Amino acid sequence: MIVILKQNTKKEDLDRFISMLNSYHVKIADISGEQHSIFGLIGDTSKIDIDLLRAQPVVADIKRVQEPYKSCNRKFHPEDTIVDIAGKKIGGKHFQVIAGPCSVENEDQIIETAEAVKAAGATLLRGGAFKPRTSPYAFQGLHADGIELLLKAKKATGMPIVTEIMAIEHLDLFADVDLIQVGARNMQNFELLKALGHSDKPILLKRGLANTMEELLMSAEYIMAGGNNNVILCERGIRTFETKTRNTLDLAAVPLLSQMSHLPIVVDPSHATGIPTLVKPLSLAAIACGANALMIEVHNNPAKALSDGAQSLTPEQFRDVMDAVKKQAAFSGKELG
Amino acid sequence: MIVILKQNTKKEDLDRFISMLNSYHVKIADISGEQHSIFGLIGDTSKIDIDLLRAQPVVADIKRVQEPYKSCNRKFHPEDTIVDIAGKKIGGKHFQVIAGPCSVENEDQIIETAEAVKAAGATLLRGGAFKPRTSPYAFQGLHADGIELLLKAKKATGMPIVTEIMAIEHLDLFADVDLIQVGARNMQNFELLKALGHSDKPILLKRGLANTMEELLMSAEYIMAGGNNNVILCERGIRTFETKTRNTLDLAAVPLLSQMSHLPIVVDPSHATGIPTLVKPLSLAAIACGANALMIEVHNNPAKALSDGAQSLTPEQFRDVMDAVKKQAAFSGKELG
Amino acid sequence: MIVILKQNTKKEDLDRFISMLNSYHVKIADISGEQHSIFGLIGDTSKIDIDLLRAQPVVADIKRVQEPYKSCNRKFHPEDTIVDIAGKKIGGKHFQVIAGPCSVENEDQIIETAEAVKAAGATLLRGGAFKPRTSPYAFQGLHADGIELLLKAKKATGMPIVTEIMAIEHLDLFADVDLIQVGARNMQNFELLKALGHSDKPILLKRGLANTMEELLMSAEYIMAGGNNNVILCERGIRTFETKTRNTLDLAAVPLLSQMSHLPIVVDPSHATGIPTLVKPLSLAAIACGANALMIEVHNNPAKALSDGAQSLTPEQFRDVMDAVKKQAAFSGKELG
Amino acid sequence: MIVILKQNTKKEDLDRFISMLNSYHVKIADISGEQHSIFGLIGDTSKIDIDLLRAQPVVADIKRVQEPYKSCNRKFHPEDTIVDIAGKKIGGKHFQVIAGPCSVENEDQIIETAEAVKAAGATLLRGGAFKPRTSPYAFQGLHADGIELLLKAKKATGMPIVTEIMAIEHLDLFADVDLIQVGARNMQNFELLKALGHSDKPILLKRGLANTMEELLMSAEYIMAGGNNNVILCERGIRTFETKTRNTLDLAAVPLLSQMSHLPIVVDPSHATGIPTLVKPLSLAAIACGANALMIEVHNNPAKALSDGAQSLTPEQFRDVMDAVKKQAAFSGKELG
Repeated sequence: MIVILKQNTKKEDLDRFISMLNSYHVKIADISGEQHSIFGLIGDTSKIDIDLLRAQPVVADIKRVQEPYKSCNRKFHPEDTIVDIAGKKIGGKHFQVIAGPCSVENEDQIIETAEAVKAAGATLLRGGAFKPRTSPYAFQGLHADGIELLLKAKKATGMPIVTEIMAIEHLDLFADVDLIQVGARNMQNFELLKALGHSDKPILLKRGLANTMEELLMSAEYIMAGGNNNVILCERGIRTFETKTRNTLDLAAVPLLSQMSHLPIVVDPSHATGIPTLVKPLSLAAIACGANALMIEVHNNPAKALSDGAQSLTPEQFRDVMDAVKKQAAFSGKELG
Repeated sequence: MIVILKQNTKKEDLDRFISMLNSYHVKIADISGEQHSIFGLIGDTSKIDIDLLRAQPVVADIKRVQEPYKSCNRKFHPEDTIVDIAGKKIGGKHFQVIAGPCSVENEDQIIETAEAVKAAGATLLRGGAFKPRTSPYAFQGLHADGIELLLKAKKATGMPIVTEIMAIEHLDLFADVDLIQVGARNMQNFELLKALGHSDKPILLKRGLANTMEELLMSAEYIMAGGNNNVILCERGIRTFETKTRNTLDLAAVPLLSQMSHLPIVVDPSHATGIPTLVKPLSLAAIACGANALMIEVHNNPAKALSDGAQSLTPEQFRDVMDAVKKQAAFSGKELG
Repeated sequence: MIVILKQNTKKEDLDRFISMLNSYHVKIADISGEQHSIFGLIGDTSKIDIDLLRAQPVVADIKRVQEPYKSCNRKFHPEDTIVDIAGKKIGGKHFQVIAGPCSVENEDQIIETAEAVKAAGATLLRGGAFKPRTSPYAFQGLHADGIELLLKAKKATGMPIVTEIMAIEHLDLFADVDLIQVGARNMQNFELLKALGHSDKPILLKRGLANTMEELLMSAEYIMAGGNNNVILCERGIRTFETKTRNTLDLAAVPLLSQMSHLPIVVDPSHATGIPTLVKPLSLAAIACGANALMIEVHNNPAKALSDGAQSLTPEQFRDVMDAVKKQAAFSGKELG
Repeated sequence: MIVILKQNTKKEDLDRFISMLNSYHVKIADISGEQHSIFGLIGDTSKIDIDLLRAQPVVADIKRVQEPYKSCNRKFHPEDTIVDIAGKKIGGKHFQVIAGPCSVENEDQIIETAEAVKAAGATLLRGGAFKPRTSPYAFQGLHADGIELLLKAKKATGMPIVTEIMAIEHLDLFADVDLIQVGARNMQNFELLKALGHSDKPILLKRGLANTMEELLMSAEYIMAGGNNNVILCERGIRTFETKTRNTLDLAAVPLLSQMSHLPIVVDPSHATGIPTLVKPLSLAAIACGANALMIEVHNNPAKALSDGAQSLTPEQFRDVMDAVKKQAAFSGKELG
């Protein structure tokens, strides 16, 4: 940790600062020059509260050298984490395709869609029971009934199910869900993350619209700090000035997160762009740069979808995407299923 | 609502679309030209699910004309809303200064700070009991004890108190809190917003780091849809590419939100910039463009603060800010207190 | 074009507005409802100045339906444009790899690098003679001498050369350059674009750091409006809040721009990320989603590079990238060379 | 300057790096700990090319401590720079209002507008002769004729004139222009900045839409490095995800730039927001936080403006803004005129 000191500080303030640093048991290397006074702190700086240091009257700025995340840091855990979701593995060479509708709407819809995506090659079923909608006047999901319907679809097709949690008090309803999704808007709902850290369920953690890769890892760290290491990261687009696509898919996050962390990474091209014709090219791109799974919205009848129909693929379109996905995955050395 | 149709659509798809529109009881005006086929929908389009329309096979794009927010829309409620917080009014000409530490740390700290900010002219006391921290290893707040200490400070100074809620299950602890804050990271925690809609407490709703003004109003709408109209909006900076300041304070939101909505608006220059020397100039700017209140971080000893000390003002600095704030408020026709 | 009118306008203002619209020879369809007064304009609205309309006292808002770009619009030119650069074609199935150093530094450096990238499979040589540097104190390029050295490298290797222009008055120096690059910072240097429109050289137009896809096409339109149709678009990352990578590579722009326009698209993963280890995965991703060419920084000795050495590949690293690139290109049906 | 070294580097690479550092005549302080190897460089590091260092095989990262700008740095020039524009001073307590149309259109328009803004209290006249327009099909300005008309308006009213330059080769036409504007899109047109550095005219340098405050200062540095110290900075909004306003006005830049630099700062609320009703509140806010001048678009007849009419004020609206501006300026201790 590098501490840049203010110029012309009072000796008593500086002395007080030095004894504060000494209390952390770090060694201080004074590397001050003519224009700047700088301390290098040597030793284990991970326990130092950077905010507290920054607030000291003698401090101009702090530059951190160590990463603030540990459990998910690849430095301390070089091998890929492989998460097992009811027999379907994500991570390393194991590759999965998660598909299904934005919202679970009724039994026919979810079972028809489940059967269609399975036939096309998808290996996990997604479907929203609790839906985060910008407007309070929009369809909010079927809640407990939606989870019941997903479980029926699981029984019918044998596919593990993925669905989003929006509040801690719903956690009991997720007892039979195979992979619990934390949506982008809840990536920094820290109370929810803590609660999930005490669960043993695999967690799919979506990157927030305005969150950096480091913040995504810090949120993963919240879950892992509670003892749950089954965390999968999800890149689903960030918010930028570009309005042609719903968000800007940050594919550089795929190889970079996998240098920073050992956790597997899923890419969601449907939410990232909101444009069905972009799902195929961006799915292939995601695999080519190392994604461990894809998450794709498919609806048996998008024109009747109660949410996000515009970005959903029809079963026919999804089959076409899967034909290309299977080939690219095989070409890129990934094993689907 | 304007619907732009795809070219060369099948007649049957178009017919199905037209009967769908008819079911909404809106009138269709066909304004197609040579290059584009366009329908204008006349009537009450507020019940139409725009996502569903967009998913129809014949639809290329939809352009909305009506605003999607109603309860907070100034069009339907031209007078300023004035929120009363234990006798302190925010809105219209009524102006308040909310001040206090980022986190409540102990009894001496909160009472000393409360007395100092009151003496300088602040009218409400802020302090975090539940703290949303990026790192799970950072101080997370004193929780219930923090609220107890705030209540002691309230008793000692008579100032109404403001503190942040992070989860629905903590709501009971907020029974004696005067103004409940929803933080930027929870602006779209819709389950929390719904729960607060059923409360009768005034709510301070902070704009999310990646949220538009319209989305802020939609979140206010969630609270108001539950019957709670005591909502105060808070501009606290959005996330941009600029890294010199922690966030980019969007002061245009102050006059623009107050054209769009009748709800009062608070500006938080401390969190927006993270730089204590910017608090005074931006406080004055906020008042000059119409803010109904300011929210400023003050700590009796920033160098010992357990969170955000670097951006906190000392009591001395705060007195200097308040001197200027009082004059600017009077100049701008606002009544403090 | 859809015109949303203000409520309660004066009759005389409205009459004046209607006669103004009539002067454009467009038909007005009045689709006003109870809450909104709306005109649909039918006919050729491409000559209407949208700013002028928006400034009329009766106008609340305008929503455009037609795209503002024509020459580069795929609607009016469905076939892919293929640009021929001294025998190397870019567009459709024709795929090229442009490689070389950020800056031309001396004869040995450029010729050694050119030979190395050619041996690895690159087909065009890049190198900066005029360098846009943030700091006036940084190396600014060899200027005319740099172009001379590029021409020597072209003679030595037979590779067509690509280099950036920064001012109209340098245009004569580019007489023997095969592909003239317009850098991101000059994407809206409209005077330069106009001058290049009167040239017959192929132009590589890089997307600006804060520019939308539509604005990129409007800048292409500036060049094409002058009669030069040999325009190649380049996605090189946009500026966002994420700081781990230099910019955020927007790969969705590749398939989307190629839906919007018939012009070929190059991807530059070196400038987009600034991180050498990301060049390979993002090059593969770019090909997988349809890029027509790649632009990669290679330096015979990055540790001695006078600019951008940190993001340059060594010849060894580049050979490794090219091995993977050749396979992915063949897999994706692209023909290199 | 702090250099973070890679782990497990070869001794020969490290030795080569150390002798490279020695060649810069800086002292190396080794502050390596167990997990990180770090060098602090002590002495004048301003001549070190940070890119070159970053490209060395042993280097993981570099953290700069010194600011990269010098001539405009307040550290080395504590007093405010005051720029004199034909007798009108900007900087320190001297405050001006620059007003006029987006484009010069004809003699009546510019003279009528000039007289109106002067009568209302504006002290400099703005008007575009060369217009940067996104579309090649939009009005591009009257060019030399536009400057002629501005000079007529100057003669008629006595107001100094401000107009934008778009290309070096037009510089001769600006001989009688009092303040030359560099637009946002040309903020990093470095060849143009260099040419203006050799001029003795005052330069108004607008911040680019995606440029940081530090980059704005680096562009000022380009002009000053040529010997021209008459540089005025202009905050006119940056590009963010928010679409309600044309750009996001970053008012924190006003006090922060004036801590970083001694150059005066102008705020342009018209271009920043594109919404006439926001000009008054944001003008007052800009003054309240320390702006040295305002730049406001006014058109004698916005409904007939050939560009940006929608954001222009009418003379009546401008008079109302000026009434408030004069009072706020006096209140904030600024002297207009």
